Amino acid sequence: METIRTVKEMQTASAGMKRAGRRVALVPTMGALHEGHMALVRAARDQGAAVVVSVYVNPTQFGAGEDFKRYPRNLDADCQACEREGVTAVFAPSDKEMYPDGDTATWVEETRLAAQFEGEKRPGHFRGVCTVVAKLFNIVQPDVATFGQKDFQQLKVVQRMVRDLRYPIEIIPVPTVRETDGLAMSSRNQLLSKAERAQATVLWKALQVARDLFNEGEHKTQRLEDAMQRTVSLAPSARLDYARVVNAESLEPVPEVRRGCVVLIAAQIGKVRLIDNVVL
Amino acid sequence: METIRTVKEMQTASAGMKRAGRRVALVPTMGALHEGHMALVRAARDQGAAVVVSVYVNPTQFGAGEDFKRYPRNLDADCQACEREGVTAVFAPSDKEMYPDGDTATWVEETRLAAQFEGEKRPGHFRGVCTVVAKLFNIVQPDVATFGQKDFQQLKVVQRMVRDLRYPIEIIPVPTVRETDGLAMSSRNQLLSKAERAQATVLWKALQVARDLFNEGEHKTQRLEDAMQRTVSLAPSARLDYARVVNAESLEPVPEVRRGCVVLIAAQIGKVRLIDNVVL
Repeated sequence: METIRTVKEMQTASAGMKRAGRRVALVPTMGALHEGHMALVRAARDQGAAVVVSVYVNPTQFGAGEDFKRYPRNLDADCQACEREGVTAVFAPSDKEMYPDGDTATWVEETRLAAQFEGEKRPGHFRGVCTVVAKLFNIVQPDVATFGQKDFQQLKVVQRMVRDLRYPIEIIPVPTVRETDGLAMSSRNQLLSKAERAQATVLWKALQVARDLFNEGEHKTQRLEDAMQRTVSLAPSARLDYARVVNAESLEPVPEVRRGCVVLIAAQIGKVRLIDNVVL
Repeated sequence: METIRTVKEMQTASAGMKRAGRRVALVPTMGALHEGHMALVRAARDQGAAVVVSVYVNPTQFGAGEDFKRYPRNLDADCQACEREGVTAVFAPSDKEMYPDGDTATWVEETRLAAQFEGEKRPGHFRGVCTVVAKLFNIVQPDVATFGQKDFQQLKVVQRMVRDLRYPIEIIPVPTVRETDGLAMSSRNQLLSKAERAQATVLWKALQVARDLFNEGEHKTQRLEDAMQRTVSLAPSARLDYARVVNAESLEPVPEVRRGCVVLIAAQIGKVRLIDNVVL
């Protein structure tokens, strides 16, 4: 397995793979790899493609006062995990490689799906995500890229960006991987204290409450959302950001909950902000 | 020569050329091809590349009340001209192909070089340009692309976009081609009446006045700009938008004019808006 540090080497390596008739699959990550990322890697490998895992904590998708500095980083362990999974190359660029002028004058911005939820709570977040994903697409030139359903809104925003900008890239959604107690895997889980870790399951509990209610025949949006709010309020360290049932394509409110709607939840557990979702 | 109408066919054709080890050069145009465009085609061909000429009048770079509807269109003549120059493929997509949802939720925007001059006079213009150029890059996947120096600010904005978004594409600037009386070739020249056409040379005259003053030792920005303004005022159909001497990289004002500065001019001749420039 190769570890590639510069944009030029990555572009050359990718062009070489494509000239050799190989499909290239990109798994974009911010590192601190866990089983959720490994599911992305396996889904990429299942495409019969050379797998490139990018490891880059992108500063432009973090707001002021967010957890950019304390976001977990561990490139050595990430490379070992990738090697074990038969990854072809890890692309781990420096900030200087990704933002050669220290910043960027050019932004890629999805303006519709990105407006609410994470986009509202974290202004500029999706602009940073779209910009760095466009850069990674231009550097790695993949045929396919895998994105986790855990970041549901991000997945939809990226799919829309790919469609709008006519990238010749297939986006493959990969189901969320959970701990045995249901907590969605996230690099941020490492930042939780032991007490917070125990309470973090409240997001998944709330989603299950909503799903169970729906399966029992409750189709009123407000009822599902109220039930989730009550569930989260039982965890003393949890502060709910939102718990909403929306159309899974447009992310718009639904008058009545139907199969295929997505339930989105975000909550602060102590100082750590977590998100999760379930499609009904 | 092939005429390609769909995004999918263009992406397939381009991938095929690249697999065959061929470099691909893109010449993005809005059609109504003239000798200026042919210079772009020849510069592309000189790269030893398969030349793809895109012909698309992009609605998102025109403002309300601008000349989108009356912008000249003549695909048959364009294809004949391309065939004569040995072009490999003309890519002439419909609006539906370029904007499948009728509009776009995702924009590419350069925020620094695009802020003034054309960007100030035509709000949203460069956002439309960057977005469609990104789409064309993603569809044609060229190794090189040629852009005319006539649209100097556009050239600089695109170069910055390519650098920021890490497109593996070399941008080749091509010198402005002029009519025998000095008027910069432009598809919009067709829209001039006979009387207006005669007066349209005032842009080039003003640029020459500035250049001559500089060559005679005048280094005060204001003196050059005043002289251009006086020159344009002599043409009764002309209304000056701007005539400025700026740094050719940053497009920022210069306290003193030096070799390498660019003189930018824009004027309305009757109902037709023309731009031109000269690098000192």
